[in-house]
Amino acid sequence: MTQAAGAALSALLLAGCVTAPAPDSLVVPPPPEPVAEMQAKEPEVPGGMQWLYGSAEGASSSIQTYRALERFVAAAVRNRPRDSVILQEGTSLPSASFVPCGKKPFAIVLDADETAIQNQGLEYALAARGVSSDRPVMNAWQNAPQTAAPAVPGAVEALRNIRALGVTAIFNTNRDSPTAAATSATLNSAGVGPAEHLKTLFLRGDVDGKSGKDGRRGHIASNYCVIALVGDQMGDFTDVLNERGLSPLERRRLASTATIGGLWGNGWFLLSNPVYGPGLRGSLDEVFAPEYRWNKGN
Amino acid sequence: MTQAAGAALSALLLAGCVTAPAPDSLVVPPPPEPVAEMQAKEPEVPGGMQWLYGSAEGASSSIQTYRALERFVAAAVRNRPRDSVILQEGTSLPSASFVPCGKKPFAIVLDADETAIQNQGLEYALAARGVSSDRPVMNAWQNAPQTAAPAVPGAVEALRNIRALGVTAIFNTNRDSPTAAATSATLNSAGVGPAEHLKTLFLRGDVDGKSGKDGRRGHIASNYCVIALVGDQMGDFTDVLNERGLSPLERRRLASTATIGGLWGNGWFLLSNPVYGPGLRGSLDEVFAPEYRWNKGN
Repeated sequence: MTQAAGAALSALLLAGCVTAPAPDSLVVPPPPEPVAEMQAKEPEVPGGMQWLYGSAEGASSSIQTYRALERFVAAAVRNRPRDSVILQEGTSLPSASFVPCGKKPFAIVLDADETAIQNQGLEYALAARGVSSDRPVMNAWQNAPQTAAPAVPGAVEALRNIRALGVTAIFNTNRDSPTAAATSATLNSAGVGPAEHLKTLFLRGDVDGKSGKDGRRGHIASNYCVIALVGDQMGDFTDVLNERGLSPLERRRLASTATIGGLWGNGWFLLSNPVYGPGLRGSLDEVFAPEYRWNKGN
Repeated sequence: MTQAAGAALSALLLAGCVTAPAPDSLVVPPPPEPVAEMQAKEPEVPGGMQWLYGSAEGASSSIQTYRALERFVAAAVRNRPRDSVILQEGTSLPSASFVPCGKKPFAIVLDADETAIQNQGLEYALAARGVSSDRPVMNAWQNAPQTAAPAVPGAVEALRNIRALGVTAIFNTNRDSPTAAATSATLNSAGVGPAEHLKTLFLRGDVDGKSGKDGRRGHIASNYCVIALVGDQMGDFTDVLNERGLSPLERRRLASTATIGGLWGNGWFLLSNPVYGPGLRGSLDEVFAPEYRWNKGN
């Protein structure tokens, strides 16, 4: 049974709809299965979760990305770049400028969720409820240290090797600042730490009190030569691509321009996350450009 | 309205359920919206399609992977490897052996669908129908040259640069052999060709008549030093990971072992595809290992 069909059945039950006539028929249909049996059916898992948390393809993708990150960082350490890979505040994309490295020590800046760790425990709880979001459940998850959040495949070894080069790994997450202790414990128990608040861990509200990460990135870049950014969403790299009013395809085009497109795998490293985030947006006409709306089948 | 809610509404309509009592009430509810208006609602787009075809994150992910491929290929051309990245027939994973390169000319072997091109026209047609698969629609799509199948972001430039190094790009797809002319035209019009049947394009049924791609890979490796494999599913790299009876997590573990895990981004390059394929499989308990089944929320 598909997820949609499951939801449909639930809706029929919720609606108390037990006398639906069979299509093209006035014959009274057989009674439906008992409610208990139907509710006992296991919820379906969204395809994005199957791919990211349960598939060979999902694991291979992140192993590949962390390997590329490690190689890039090793090369940057051998040959110190002039600039960090962090955009200057107020820079415009066509003529983007970056924060200078000077003689600052090396660092990489990573997002936490679905970048360094996978929130499998939380997503299991959400999938079991058949929902994509549930604030009380998410708060319960983020406010306590968790062991059901494994490292993203490839992250532990790559971060170990990167730190061995003398590069500091700094987490910049949008979990709220009051969850710092729990977030640090969760990252450390996954094996991707150390993560120490305001040293190697920055959260939403830190530095400038804003939800965008640019202020925290600027603060980190004032103390470090940031040779790589790692994340699963555009906001982990620059707030520019999260501006309101950008349609999905405008945002996609901006991420592919010479300036930004030239950074992917070249200082900016993206982990695929088809489970949640601004990348999962858009109606049919917002996702598919007019020239690709083929519909000649049948 | 969520996809599930949309399906639920449709189900209520299909079931002719128009007298559902409001929860906790015996009051007759107001009549539902007219059927025509509800059916006019646009179908929702699966999250995987939003991410892969319509998001900045999806485009960034493939640009990054093609950049890594191009760098790897350039290094291999400068320093000829001893072996192809194609497993010897009948090799076992723990002690995997690869086909020797000898003095054979260089090639890379790519899958076509969601690796070199995106089947946006087809997926638009399926999403518009609210289905994930429809054989007649898929046949109509594959049996004619299509222009609604853009190149995967990053593929055109990378393939141009790779061919400029004297490396042959060969497509190994599981579209059926009789679609060779249409498939070749579709690849060429997307700008990722040339694709010439039995020279730079192999399809299901070619070489050994099998649906697995190992036979075709072996044939190509007998004529070329294959320095990279590119695909979106395990079958684009080895049939071993598609053996029946492998659970999703067993398959995931095998792809992460030293032998196979060491190849990701290191000869084997995976494009993320959360839209279809063997990676989108599994119940809650097949996707989430017991230690990650947190459910303490609420």
